[in-house]
Amino acid sequence: MELTPQVRKILSWYESDSPGTKANLSRILMHGRLGGSGRLLILPVDQGFEHGPARSFAINAPAYDPHYHFQLALDAGLSAYAAPLGMIEAGAGTFAGAIPTILKVNSSNSLAQAKDQAVTGSVREALRLGCSAIGFTIYPGSDHAFAMMEEIAAMAAEAKSYGLAVVIWSYPRGHLSKPGETAIDITAYAAHMAALLGAHIIKVKPPTEALEQDEAKKVYEKQKVDVSTLKARIAHIMQSAFNGRRIVVFSGGAAKDTEGVLEEARGIRDGGGTGMIIGRNSFQRKREDALKLLDSLIKIFLGQG
Amino acid sequence: MELTPQVRKILSWYESDSPGTKANLSRILMHGRLGGSGRLLILPVDQGFEHGPARSFAINAPAYDPHYHFQLALDAGLSAYAAPLGMIEAGAGTFAGAIPTILKVNSSNSLAQAKDQAVTGSVREALRLGCSAIGFTIYPGSDHAFAMMEEIAAMAAEAKSYGLAVVIWSYPRGHLSKPGETAIDITAYAAHMAALLGAHIIKVKPPTEALEQDEAKKVYEKQKVDVSTLKARIAHIMQSAFNGRRIVVFSGGAAKDTEGVLEEARGIRDGGGTGMIIGRNSFQRKREDALKLLDSLIKIFLGQG
Amino acid sequence: MELTPQVRKILSWYESDSPGTKANLSRILMHGRLGGSGRLLILPVDQGFEHGPARSFAINAPAYDPHYHFQLALDAGLSAYAAPLGMIEAGAGTFAGAIPTILKVNSSNSLAQAKDQAVTGSVREALRLGCSAIGFTIYPGSDHAFAMMEEIAAMAAEAKSYGLAVVIWSYPRGHLSKPGETAIDITAYAAHMAALLGAHIIKVKPPTEALEQDEAKKVYEKQKVDVSTLKARIAHIMQSAFNGRRIVVFSGGAAKDTEGVLEEARGIRDGGGTGMIIGRNSFQRKREDALKLLDSLIKIFLGQG
Amino acid sequence: MELTPQVRKILSWYESDSPGTKANLSRILMHGRLGGSGRLLILPVDQGFEHGPARSFAINAPAYDPHYHFQLALDAGLSAYAAPLGMIEAGAGTFAGAIPTILKVNSSNSLAQAKDQAVTGSVREALRLGCSAIGFTIYPGSDHAFAMMEEIAAMAAEAKSYGLAVVIWSYPRGHLSKPGETAIDITAYAAHMAALLGAHIIKVKPPTEALEQDEAKKVYEKQKVDVSTLKARIAHIMQSAFNGRRIVVFSGGAAKDTEGVLEEARGIRDGGGTGMIIGRNSFQRKREDALKLLDSLIKIFLGQG
Amino acid sequence: MELTPQVRKILSWYESDSPGTKANLSRILMHGRLGGSGRLLILPVDQGFEHGPARSFAINAPAYDPHYHFQLALDAGLSAYAAPLGMIEAGAGTFAGAIPTILKVNSSNSLAQAKDQAVTGSVREALRLGCSAIGFTIYPGSDHAFAMMEEIAAMAAEAKSYGLAVVIWSYPRGHLSKPGETAIDITAYAAHMAALLGAHIIKVKPPTEALEQDEAKKVYEKQKVDVSTLKARIAHIMQSAFNGRRIVVFSGGAAKDTEGVLEEARGIRDGGGTGMIIGRNSFQRKREDALKLLDSLIKIFLGQG
Repeated sequence: MELTPQVRKILSWYESDSPGTKANLSRILMHGRLGGSGRLLILPVDQGFEHGPARSFAINAPAYDPHYHFQLALDAGLSAYAAPLGMIEAGAGTFAGAIPTILKVNSSNSLAQAKDQAVTGSVREALRLGCSAIGFTIYPGSDHAFAMMEEIAAMAAEAKSYGLAVVIWSYPRGHLSKPGETAIDITAYAAHMAALLGAHIIKVKPPTEALEQDEAKKVYEKQKVDVSTLKARIAHIMQSAFNGRRIVVFSGGAAKDTEGVLEEARGIRDGGGTGMIIGRNSFQRKREDALKLLDSLIKIFLGQG
Repeated sequence: MELTPQVRKILSWYESDSPGTKANLSRILMHGRLGGSGRLLILPVDQGFEHGPARSFAINAPAYDPHYHFQLALDAGLSAYAAPLGMIEAGAGTFAGAIPTILKVNSSNSLAQAKDQAVTGSVREALRLGCSAIGFTIYPGSDHAFAMMEEIAAMAAEAKSYGLAVVIWSYPRGHLSKPGETAIDITAYAAHMAALLGAHIIKVKPPTEALEQDEAKKVYEKQKVDVSTLKARIAHIMQSAFNGRRIVVFSGGAAKDTEGVLEEARGIRDGGGTGMIIGRNSFQRKREDALKLLDSLIKIFLGQG
Repeated sequence: MELTPQVRKILSWYESDSPGTKANLSRILMHGRLGGSGRLLILPVDQGFEHGPARSFAINAPAYDPHYHFQLALDAGLSAYAAPLGMIEAGAGTFAGAIPTILKVNSSNSLAQAKDQAVTGSVREALRLGCSAIGFTIYPGSDHAFAMMEEIAAMAAEAKSYGLAVVIWSYPRGHLSKPGETAIDITAYAAHMAALLGAHIIKVKPPTEALEQDEAKKVYEKQKVDVSTLKARIAHIMQSAFNGRRIVVFSGGAAKDTEGVLEEARGIRDGGGTGMIIGRNSFQRKREDALKLLDSLIKIFLGQG
Repeated sequence: MELTPQVRKILSWYESDSPGTKANLSRILMHGRLGGSGRLLILPVDQGFEHGPARSFAINAPAYDPHYHFQLALDAGLSAYAAPLGMIEAGAGTFAGAIPTILKVNSSNSLAQAKDQAVTGSVREALRLGCSAIGFTIYPGSDHAFAMMEEIAAMAAEAKSYGLAVVIWSYPRGHLSKPGETAIDITAYAAHMAALLGAHIIKVKPPTEALEQDEAKKVYEKQKVDVSTLKARIAHIMQSAFNGRRIVVFSGGAAKDTEGVLEEARGIRDGGGTGMIIGRNSFQRKREDALKLLDSLIKIFLGQG
Repeated sequence: MELTPQVRKILSWYESDSPGTKANLSRILMHGRLGGSGRLLILPVDQGFEHGPARSFAINAPAYDPHYHFQLALDAGLSAYAAPLGMIEAGAGTFAGAIPTILKVNSSNSLAQAKDQAVTGSVREALRLGCSAIGFTIYPGSDHAFAMMEEIAAMAAEAKSYGLAVVIWSYPRGHLSKPGETAIDITAYAAHMAALLGAHIIKVKPPTEALEQDEAKKVYEKQKVDVSTLKARIAHIMQSAFNGRRIVVFSGGAAKDTEGVLEEARGIRDGGGTGMIIGRNSFQRKREDALKLLDSLIKIFLGQG
């Protein structure tokens, strides 16, 4: 399929990457109903690892089945599907080539104390399973942040050498207040560090107006950085991601009502965010409702909502 | 894109392959205007290596430019584009992810005497360049056949370990008469050996009615194997390729008139051949004529011609 | 370009290095407006990692764009540009060969508690990105100092085996008073340890008159080591860097007024320091102002100011 | 140094290469008096290996000294200097970073019978010696051609993985008539095969009007490919090198009179050839005469002669 | 021991080598009675491999004992001792550190037909045995010459990476007349190729006035290269060894009378040759006679004879 000008432009930002990595980014950017628009909507299903199966799937029991999520992403016309090893293994044959996949190569769980994750996948497994990218979470602010950064630095270099793309979930936590985890200064910082670590796609949470660090607060106030609206905050995150030269997708966060999700999506779109990565808000609804919500989101990112 | 029943069936034949390899086969099978039909039309451009640039491109000078072929394959809605290292390198960035590519990893040339080829590519290069498969030529009947088979056996195993697919061009030559090179017994044998070597996609020439080997001839006659029509011969080749459990594409060979090509295509289609790999007959025509011919071929394989 | 006597002399100090490493040092020493003078002015942009994007770039918003810094270093006629992986990746293609680059392979951030850094780059990435050197920070005095030294010892050996040069940022912190971090005895010690670790280029902060360690204090006083002026202190640092046989560049530190920077530069020059590495004081001004300041600094190091 | 539009355009052709490889190409393209013009003039000194020391250097005895050639290339303002291992080792320290070097990694000699070369260098040696590229000779038409192609295919992949560039000397010989070795069809074929093997820079001999292969002859005549002038033939070679998307330099061949060399240079320039690689015609003259000749050549390629 | 100006100058020629390799060269150059003079006298004992034990040692039976040769080299004050693996293993403990050793890593024998040698040692074995260098024979002109060159190219790179020195015995044979094997043009060529292959120390036979190659003959005559005396021929060999930038030692060849050996030594000395490598002429005499001869040779190279 002929690459669109939007996709060509995005690929041009990744000027140090091999054609293999560009091809995998292109597959994600050209896939689904947002294919070619330069926008992304990704389905992540790592909630089972993070919170346990019942907390994740009991509300919509068909979602216990790994095939459910591949099919949902496919039917909704999403850009890609991201999940840990086992979830991908359980469907990668049936859905081979049907939708780009992202192997989430580290994972946490709610039984653990440490603000860390276990490396549970690898670049070679991603190749074996036909994935287009690896995904990795860092916790800036955690006592484990340096170790996590070293893990993804090594895995990212390996992934790129094989033509895969790299997605970094940058989730501040640790030596931070709870509101600080999504404060605008911290989120911008988190996005920037992911970019510096060599991520092709960055995932952060939609930021609030809060300002966590005193030194940063002074700057935001003195330089009059506009953080008053979601749109403005998203624009600031994009600026912090190499002046918009990196793809940034925002999570939907905890399940919320439909209009709340759509409103957030409009803010992300209007601020120039690349798109969303939406897990619980999709698979924790009935399939029809999820498809309806995802359809609305796609329309928003296509400028039709 | 939802895999079609035809593609699901084809993928089911490759039951020992990883999801990565299946995904790459799927990308080829789902791409272009034949995407999902279970049929394939592939553009190969290794003529420059085989016969030199002027013999390949002088008749249609824009074809000297490597981008021309990527664009032709894309515009015609073909399934994949196959070429040696330099040709892929020269366009793999611009056309990243736009069309599946096959890195031809060995090549011959018309200055050489030996019925052999040089290994000029590698699996790591195929990954770097974002290719879905490697392609390799063997010359059954040549004094170099065992060495060539050993090369592809090793490279195929490596390719599969990284989730790539393997295409084998099986071209008998050497201790054979000239007509024997395309005789039905020899072509069936060539297809079968390629399958036995682990090829996912097999390329052979359309076979003639000739029978080269005496022992084979006896059997064909005694068992009344029907080789009287192209359709019957194609059906026999498919039978020889694991009773149709392997993808087989047939070359168009030297440039010929349009009706000759189309008639051959109908025979291939009716005999159950997967499709064609058509080089000189496409890029040695003016672009408009090539697009018209390729459109006709696609219609034939879609059952519309 | 014919190497100047000054550059030949400097290269002669690195008598155990391969021609590859010498060539990379030479590229840095021969580049820009100070090329051939034996002096260096380097642009480092790791502030985004260290302090976050807004604190680094909000004051001069075009600096959010990675290309801005390559272009600034180029237009100002600087010797080299140093930055973490993502910043280099985002411009290394566009500016290939236009200016020597230094890949900063470890980085800290202001969300972290530990006086440590994460290893976020590698020698192979430096080669892939066309860098002339790797850069690494050690924190002598920190509980992590031994681990950091072991990391750079291993990476420096690898870098040298591939013909790259090694830059060590030696920043004392940890079991030290705040004034002690820039005390003359500690800074001299930091420079000496970097030299002992095999650095080709050493970066320290301009030292103050303070003396941190009691045993050192006795010696400085007994031996009447002159530390009364910046010039004298710089001379002592150079002496501590193998009697001037190693390149030492001094940081400009936090943004300050122009005359303060120029005065410091004169002290560095007069004390025989090789040059400066000047980040915030350049990119946290408007581009025109930065170019003017850098022009003044170059003139100082050329003996014209 | 700011890359010129000409150099940016050339680098854009190498769209699959890493910034490291682009930086090394850029160093060659930006160096010397032709720096930035998009033209190249390279000094190769492998004559000692090919023909022995006296035949190479007795006519100009200072040329026995390896330093002589580095200095000549430097003083004449050439783009790069290419030589076998020992010649580079003997001067790479003294001239570190002063001029881009190309390590010729295989070599023949006039005591040998086989139309082959010995691999006498390696990628790791090129890195150790600070070279920007490796150089390799293939003999298309020789019984050893496939083996040579396999050697450079493997070494080129390795070189690219470390950010080096690749130069291929493509010299047809073997199953060819003597005039056939420089025939236009054969030379175009030789350039095309080097491009297909992944060369960044291709070196061939200026072609004659002769046509060696019958099948090719028919095409050249039927398609009326203009081969009547050197300019037209050079243009055809460039066309055969991916429609001008690859750098091609032409050898000066055996020493000849000055006007003969200059006339050839004008033909190469007017046909769009990238430049020349001129060995015997430079170092087999007195230094003053060589400098004068090289000055004339540079002026020609700058459009001033 | 303070390095002498002569040794410093010699070491300066090896400008691309590591201090480790320089230290091993220095050990040889500073050892024995010629230590520091810039001259060398080396004892090689590979005759047993080349011609069998009786032909080598029966005339002086104590020489059957490997310790005999270590002791002889030591007592005579020679520069180094070179031998195949077993000979070194048999004495390397007893004489550990007493005299520099060179592990001859390939060897021929008189039962063999091919003009080739077997690789019988390795760099790792040389390190295990405390050797300062590896020694390797090439046969330029042989059908095996390319393979031999590839072997030493790889082993030399490995040896240098471990800080060892490399000695190449360059002995033309094969497609040459018998007198051609020691002809001046061929010997100069042999020395030059060894230098190009990266040898630190080159060993050739003293050349005769003969000229073997027609093309070379024309040049020698036209350029009036003086080959009339041994002194002139040695000077030409040194010139061919990078204008004297490489150490060249000359073999004594077949056993001859004392005065013949001394006369040859004077020619080598006067022509600027570095020294001699003298096997059969030393150990095929009684120990007292050998010591007397070696004493005379040392005096000659010290300018005392």
